[in-house]
Amino acid sequence: MDLFEAIDRRYSYRGAFTDAPVPRQDLQKIVQAGIQAPSACNAQVTSFVMVDDPTLLRQIAEIMNRTPCPTAKAMIACVADPQPVYHALSFSAEDCAAAVENILLAIAALGYATVWIDGALRTKERAERIGELLGVPAGKKVRVLLPLGVAAEPGQQREKLPFAQRAYFNHYGSTG
Amino acid sequence: MDLFEAIDRRYSYRGAFTDAPVPRQDLQKIVQAGIQAPSACNAQVTSFVMVDDPTLLRQIAEIMNRTPCPTAKAMIACVADPQPVYHALSFSAEDCAAAVENILLAIAALGYATVWIDGALRTKERAERIGELLGVPAGKKVRVLLPLGVAAEPGQQREKLPFAQRAYFNHYGSTG
Repeated sequence: MDLFEAIDRRYSYRGAFTDAPVPRQDLQKIVQAGIQAPSACNAQVTSFVMVDDPTLLRQIAEIMNRTPCPTAKAMIACVADPQPVYHALSFSAEDCAAAVENILLAIAALGYATVWIDGALRTKERAERIGELLGVPAGKKVRVLLPLGVAAEPGQQREKLPFAQRAYFNHYGSTG
Repeated sequence: MDLFEAIDRRYSYRGAFTDAPVPRQDLQKIVQAGIQAPSACNAQVTSFVMVDDPTLLRQIAEIMNRTPCPTAKAMIACVADPQPVYHALSFSAEDCAAAVENILLAIAALGYATVWIDGALRTKERAERIGELLGVPAGKKVRVLLPLGVAAEPGQQREKLPFAQRAYFNHYGSTG
């Protein structure tokens, strides 16, 4: 799929998924897109656990307690490592987000749907509980969860503000 | 360009740029890709200043004091707003990074090159000084700078760790 078409088609999906599986070959292609995202100093501190075991999927869905997790045919747990890589600075949030965006585009291009779950992981120790289920080592953290599958219902990208309200030439707020 | 080809071709470029300009139409298409990236609660708190004024380009290059800024034909300053959008949480770093990744892919697809500058903005008050030059309002911050143009020298994506060292099925560190 053309890049700009994938950018147009990517959207956040919170409906049910069909029974269609997500083959491992597709999961690998999707996660490879994330691996190829840039990272600060090319330190590559983001890693990924691809979940397709039905028991684990059910356990994670119970922890998350929100759509579209219960019907997800696979999940990708994006794991960040907050170690400093440039002077005393960590870029683990940025690195992880760049990888997630590549993954979202790959998911759209391959005909699947997902939603970027982040904030909900930060409450009720969900990130920690999922990390424990998946054997994530101490010091690393499940930062983003992506439940995926084939969308059972239609959906589309949410409306964005007009270009002129978010982008300017040479001066913030300029109109020309 | 195909999505996966764009993901393959994106790389960090620190060489010189040719004299070829970056037309505003291309800058708009590139930044529109960033606008369409997801944002927490669709709050769209990332904004963009596209710089093509030669005086401003020179002034920013002097502040940055590093390649490839001096020969950049345009720059995109990505401006984050750290206001909380979900309970007391801000996702401005994540939102900005997702937008930047879309922008990097669009830059690659249109035949330009760039590099994601972040850490260097955080020292010597560079972000603040560039923000002042561009009229960025108080409370918002230049979080990422993307100098771009047509690469004068060849370049490619830096080598990534093997898939099996960054991605696992169902258990962190598993091999199968």
